[in-house]
Amino acid sequence: MLKVIRIEKSLFEENEKLAKEVREILNEKNILSFNVMGSPGSGKTLFIEKTIENLKEKFNFAVIEGDVEGVIDAEKFKKFNIPVIQINTGGGCHLDANMVKIGISEIKIDEIDILFVENVGNLICPAEFDIGTEKNIVVSSITEGNDKVLKYPLIFKFSDICILNKVDLLPYSEFDFEKFENDLKKISPETILIKLSSKTGENFFEWIEYLRRLKKGKK
Amino acid sequence: MLKVIRIEKSLFEENEKLAKEVREILNEKNILSFNVMGSPGSGKTLFIEKTIENLKEKFNFAVIEGDVEGVIDAEKFKKFNIPVIQINTGGGCHLDANMVKIGISEIKIDEIDILFVENVGNLICPAEFDIGTEKNIVVSSITEGNDKVLKYPLIFKFSDICILNKVDLLPYSEFDFEKFENDLKKISPETILIKLSSKTGENFFEWIEYLRRLKKGKK
Repeated sequence: MLKVIRIEKSLFEENEKLAKEVREILNEKNILSFNVMGSPGSGKTLFIEKTIENLKEKFNFAVIEGDVEGVIDAEKFKKFNIPVIQINTGGGCHLDANMVKIGISEIKIDEIDILFVENVGNLICPAEFDIGTEKNIVVSSITEGNDKVLKYPLIFKFSDICILNKVDLLPYSEFDFEKFENDLKKISPETILIKLSSKTGENFFEWIEYLRRLKKGKK
Repeated sequence: MLKVIRIEKSLFEENEKLAKEVREILNEKNILSFNVMGSPGSGKTLFIEKTIENLKEKFNFAVIEGDVEGVIDAEKFKKFNIPVIQINTGGGCHLDANMVKIGISEIKIDEIDILFVENVGNLICPAEFDIGTEKNIVVSSITEGNDKVLKYPLIFKFSDICILNKVDLLPYSEFDFEKFENDLKKISPETILIKLSSKTGENFFEWIEYLRRLKKGKK
């Protein structure tokens, strides 16, 4: 066991070095970038799709799509005619900075304003790997239940923004917003919480306004 | 990288040895055992709760509860007055056979008929670790979307039973049963699919009947 821990540490160090490199490349080009994490089926892809749909006239987007295998999500972005890079981890449970570095090397980044990196669907492993993006986002859907912050605290601490998704299903669930919000304040007081539905568009403007302020702050 | 792979291989071998030991212990006592896997919030805990609720007069249950941290789920079983062992992986993204072996050493297994092991909420990593139980179950909820089989094929191949949960939310989702069923048949034709709602009890009897047949087959 000790051996494994030592090797993991060196992996973490190598990852941090590469994350710094990714960050420098993106900052130099003034690209606003997001690492979008969350459980399988929390609605990460639709969240990114709806964001692009809202802002495609204003900004140029690119997407790096992380999945164990396949191109199901990547194909959903075809309609936008933007650069989409699929990374298949082949069983790996998270993206790392090296994969993102390879991903951005495939994009003409001079033409990009905003980059979304959709991580592998997993509420545990991605929280240990800085991938060099500016902001970490965790997407949690109300159908997953309101105990997720306490059960998977690391990813909420790691995230600058928490998107609480699928609020359109609130009437059919027993989700307790106040509990979720209080848990998040306790575990990670700096994380910004935005409740919305990517499907119906409910409160989506709050996220769009927030993103526009972030982008303005960069220029 | 090569180093890491070698160590993982030896970990896998060690795990298989321990899984065999667990299996022998459980078989000797004629205990029917399940490894319950699934995304965070797919409804694993409630599924186990409802099963126990249905059969607690007929059988003696025990639960080994795997979580990154905390005892939120374990506490839900207090009401049944049964042995419940919480295993906290401290960041680890799956249970392994050694953890289950330690878990069962804490239970008076002579008094147990059915053992549920609830794995860490994760659709990727648990599929690589046999934990020595008789049947692997993956719980997938319809709110996660119908692309999960194709996106996370390994865990569906690894599972003897797929519980498609939260069918009570069908009217408010665009879930396509036929697609899910066809994907599962293609990826893992041996896996038995049972659609139900742990919350409302819809079609739960199908699972209960199946479990009773399994238990009968053991005696």
